[in-house]
Amino acid sequence: MPAKPLRIAVVGTGAIGSFYGGKLAHGGRNVHFLLRSGFAKIKRSGIRIRGRKENFHIARVQAYETADAIGPCDLVMIALKVTNNEALLQLIPPLLHPHTILLTLQNGLGNEDFLARHFGANRVMGGLCFICLNRISPGLIEHLGYGYLTIGEFTGPPKPRTRAVVREFQESGVACRIVDNLMQERWGKLVWNIPFNGLTIAAGGITTEDILQDDSLHSAALALMNEVIEGAKSCGYNLPADVAVEHMKRTETMGAYKPSTLLDFEAGRALEVEAIWGEPLRRAQTGGTAMPRLEQLYALLKSLNARRE
Amino acid sequence: MPAKPLRIAVVGTGAIGSFYGGKLAHGGRNVHFLLRSGFAKIKRSGIRIRGRKENFHIARVQAYETADAIGPCDLVMIALKVTNNEALLQLIPPLLHPHTILLTLQNGLGNEDFLARHFGANRVMGGLCFICLNRISPGLIEHLGYGYLTIGEFTGPPKPRTRAVVREFQESGVACRIVDNLMQERWGKLVWNIPFNGLTIAAGGITTEDILQDDSLHSAALALMNEVIEGAKSCGYNLPADVAVEHMKRTETMGAYKPSTLLDFEAGRALEVEAIWGEPLRRAQTGGTAMPRLEQLYALLKSLNARRE
Repeated sequence: MPAKPLRIAVVGTGAIGSFYGGKLAHGGRNVHFLLRSGFAKIKRSGIRIRGRKENFHIARVQAYETADAIGPCDLVMIALKVTNNEALLQLIPPLLHPHTILLTLQNGLGNEDFLARHFGANRVMGGLCFICLNRISPGLIEHLGYGYLTIGEFTGPPKPRTRAVVREFQESGVACRIVDNLMQERWGKLVWNIPFNGLTIAAGGITTEDILQDDSLHSAALALMNEVIEGAKSCGYNLPADVAVEHMKRTETMGAYKPSTLLDFEAGRALEVEAIWGEPLRRAQTGGTAMPRLEQLYALLKSLNARRE
Repeated sequence: MPAKPLRIAVVGTGAIGSFYGGKLAHGGRNVHFLLRSGFAKIKRSGIRIRGRKENFHIARVQAYETADAIGPCDLVMIALKVTNNEALLQLIPPLLHPHTILLTLQNGLGNEDFLARHFGANRVMGGLCFICLNRISPGLIEHLGYGYLTIGEFTGPPKPRTRAVVREFQESGVACRIVDNLMQERWGKLVWNIPFNGLTIAAGGITTEDILQDDSLHSAALALMNEVIEGAKSCGYNLPADVAVEHMKRTETMGAYKPSTLLDFEAGRALEVEAIWGEPLRRAQTGGTAMPRLEQLYALLKSLNARRE
């Protein structure tokens, strides 16, 4: 790592970008936020994180309306909605120098592949956010629980730069850990996202607690979890035996939580249907695993989503 | 059969009761309609069936507000929503004499069992309505397509009385055919109702045509059909090999049809979740067949329904 501090860009200043970018900025890092709709408000009022465990305010945010105004960075953190990925083809190039790292914090499967295809696989890292956030308005984020990050390399085992990026987060107060196998980690997270993000929407706008308290939906969630575990296996990723149990335990502590995808859906915003449900289904099917429940849920969510757009 | 004309009661004058009761009355049968909310309007304006193929109006309907006012009948046609079955415990007894036939035209599984439990299995017959109807208002029914009835005995093979009832409908211009195995017929109809009534609701209020035109939903419907066929088999009913194909062909002729359950759901009325989805699932599971897709769809519909009531 260079001795001088990393130059960091955040592309996509929604809940995830605001929180993790905000933590880095609050921790004294040199963070540049690329903004669209919220630019004026964040430039004026900054970014505020509200939560039971932490409250902080970054009064002076380095906010930009164009990637050109930011220029080349060492680390680009991508937190755009997956459905806007095409915009990255314009947004990323001005931020690149030969060794720029692209770290996607986006949901589901396929985002590292997208970045690798367009900007070179070597640059690409992925991060998984285990966190409950709601964006109240631009720059105002409610932190409902959790917050840890796991980060890994797209193309192989961790490198010195992986540890350096993890350290940036750790030193800014983010619980962050390195993962040896990023794709296995992504499948492990999908074991939660596929049932809970999906069923809270398809069952009519309910909370994670509603699922746990309804016998039929609880069974449906567990059955989906087991399908995803089998799907991961058929793609070569053997998840820990207790992954479903651990997810369920954690869900019990969440209370009446509405996942961000449900809030998106209720607000009429596009769902990340392909990244969270479609791509895992296709990869598992290619691996030879039938996923009847996921297949049906995917069909329903795609239709629900199409009727919202 | 007695030489004198049958005394017929219709309990539940929604779309199905109005149409088939209306056909019998229009055919000169002695039909008594038991009504709740629509009494005044139907007493005043009668029952009107509107459709491309047939239009008819029964100006003077024998309408009643209580079962006592009707008194004992030879044939009681039950077309109440399944979710109101408890009301039958009060409504049926005044209509009974020792040989009264109870013919349920209701949806799904469990209605014959309910009547048998409370009024004796020997009285019970079941009818399946293959018809597309919408109730516009009390007494005003839109006939969108089809219309044939199949009728069978609950407890065994057809009897002379079965043929007599079928003849009543045939002579009133209803395409009606006897079935040797009523429960097998019900399973055969569920091969359509379970996917199409279910997916049109769960996918966000779409038509049967939307399902046929969307690859994922079309596959989901076919997969559900195959589950129901397997479920029927595990309960001892071997459906014809071409049942799914025939249903699909028929669905293609329906156009942009919204099943009555979807219209119910959109109007905030209770869904017949248990009769159409819950009871078939439980019977198949008892028979040893896993129905992952139906299990998930049932959980979703139950939740959607609970949030509507």
